Amino acid sequence: MRALVWDGSRARVVADVPDPIPVAGECVVRVLRAGICSTDLEILGGYLGFRGIPGHEFVGRVEQGPADLVGTRVVGEINFGCGRCEVCAAGRGRHCPSRSVLGIVGADGAFADRLRIPSANLHRVPESLDDDTAVFVEPLAAAFRAGEQTAALAGGRSLVIGAGKLGLLVAQVLRGRGDRVVVLARRPGALRLAESLGLAAVPDTGSVDGFDLVVDASGSPDGLAIALRAARPLGTIVVKTTVASRHDVDLAPLVIDEVTLVGSRCGPFPPAVAGLASGAVTVAPLVEATFGLGDAIEALRRAGEPGARKILLDPGR
Amino acid sequence: MRALVWDGSRARVVADVPDPIPVAGECVVRVLRAGICSTDLEILGGYLGFRGIPGHEFVGRVEQGPADLVGTRVVGEINFGCGRCEVCAAGRGRHCPSRSVLGIVGADGAFADRLRIPSANLHRVPESLDDDTAVFVEPLAAAFRAGEQTAALAGGRSLVIGAGKLGLLVAQVLRGRGDRVVVLARRPGALRLAESLGLAAVPDTGSVDGFDLVVDASGSPDGLAIALRAARPLGTIVVKTTVASRHDVDLAPLVIDEVTLVGSRCGPFPPAVAGLASGAVTVAPLVEATFGLGDAIEALRRAGEPGARKILLDPGR
Repeated sequence: MRALVWDGSRARVVADVPDPIPVAGECVVRVLRAGICSTDLEILGGYLGFRGIPGHEFVGRVEQGPADLVGTRVVGEINFGCGRCEVCAAGRGRHCPSRSVLGIVGADGAFADRLRIPSANLHRVPESLDDDTAVFVEPLAAAFRAGEQTAALAGGRSLVIGAGKLGLLVAQVLRGRGDRVVVLARRPGALRLAESLGLAAVPDTGSVDGFDLVVDASGSPDGLAIALRAARPLGTIVVKTTVASRHDVDLAPLVIDEVTLVGSRCGPFPPAVAGLASGAVTVAPLVEATFGLGDAIEALRRAGEPGARKILLDPGR
Repeated sequence: MRALVWDGSRARVVADVPDPIPVAGECVVRVLRAGICSTDLEILGGYLGFRGIPGHEFVGRVEQGPADLVGTRVVGEINFGCGRCEVCAAGRGRHCPSRSVLGIVGADGAFADRLRIPSANLHRVPESLDDDTAVFVEPLAAAFRAGEQTAALAGGRSLVIGAGKLGLLVAQVLRGRGDRVVVLARRPGALRLAESLGLAAVPDTGSVDGFDLVVDASGSPDGLAIALRAARPLGTIVVKTTVASRHDVDLAPLVIDEVTLVGSRCGPFPPAVAGLASGAVTVAPLVEATFGLGDAIEALRRAGEPGARKILLDPGR
């Protein structure tokens, strides 16, 4: 099969990668669409030391696996816990210390014709969701995670820093639960995109303070400092930004204002599927372009352009 | 009266500072003991731009004020909210945006013969608590705040980073609610002091990981990085350290492990008074030395020595 392969120094499309061979409990899924995430770009910059086939956002069709799954269209949770340790037993497999993570840690990912994945990680996709929509389930689940971690703040004043792909998903999730949401969008194009989704958006940090909840989806090392200025005393900041660089930040305001900072990673798939199916979350305007797998290098370049929206790969193209 | 006065560049003991004149709702308190806190040393380094009489840990006797208070021995909460704003109305006066703070922000403090303070901030001290014990109510309340913010974690594995004055109070509070507490104490003297209080203590960071709760009471910019390594996935870090310097820290582990970081400042006085009265918290071993007010400069110098325990001022001496 074809796949984008990262060897630690170079990414290239390889035409003759061996097809994945599933072990017990796994499926082989033919990839229908894969999405390029900022984390993929970080990985291709050396983040986490990954080697192999990146890609963790996908929708596909099961080719091998349990009879009731073969032929169905699925999305997949990306953390593969060991299933045997204390953490997994406590239902926290996303934090299993010996987990692998699709296309991120120790497991080949979705920038390929096919991938293998534990059957238990799969969720069926309703027919009403087309591939270009369903491929957003994984990042939207990560957005729902921010909501899940701050359920007590529903209905409050919320600021989302960053009108990138993830930021606009988070903003829609928070709006859907009744928050009064403002998006901080520094690029004019991002500001217009946020407004086209019906979201209140502001271009600079001057007027943002006193928020009950601030979500840093800036993808930038300066997002946290902005968040600390924008959160009210006793407020909460959800950090979605993993940047492969250090934060140089004054944490005295965190202590003085007794702010809570919560790291947030992967989230629950069922509300993401439901949010797309109900139309509560709109993703079509977030798609910038779709490339064939043979053009994956060009797709990555486009995804890395400042202000780029979601770039999709379509191996069938 | 006499007071230690900080003019922004120099601290000196002044013999003829005018006595404080109370306004409506305030008391004048004669200071029996005052404690020197690391925050005071930061203030004398320029922190928060304070000018005037520092000092916020005290026990004293009411000289002027309501008849039912005059003559009683009291400790005092240090945040003076406006009492009229939305934040105060919501019972969060400690976070009133126009508050003053005794000896820290816009209000003269306790390194003096007398201070003035809102009567509503005062708590009577039981006769069973001597002055050297009662002067710990304020810092112990700050320690109880860490417990109050993490009530759901009671009984878990907790690490306290730093065996200084605040760290050893926090460790005793957490032990008192049933946590299995370990203290990270890098100085041999601090390690022995922790052990003398019956606390488990370790000298280095090699063996500390997987904690449900980590409290950074290190007073050091590197405390947070240690805390991030020591907390388990989905664990909680309480930050007690306000250092007048920036943190250079990699926050990717916070996101990946979905750790919660909570800033923690001042706390509730009643459990602190009760904890001292019951003997659940021991403070006598934490006292390094007591100085008269005339020797306050020397007292500050001693308080700033590495590994110094609590230095007290006794204006009556």
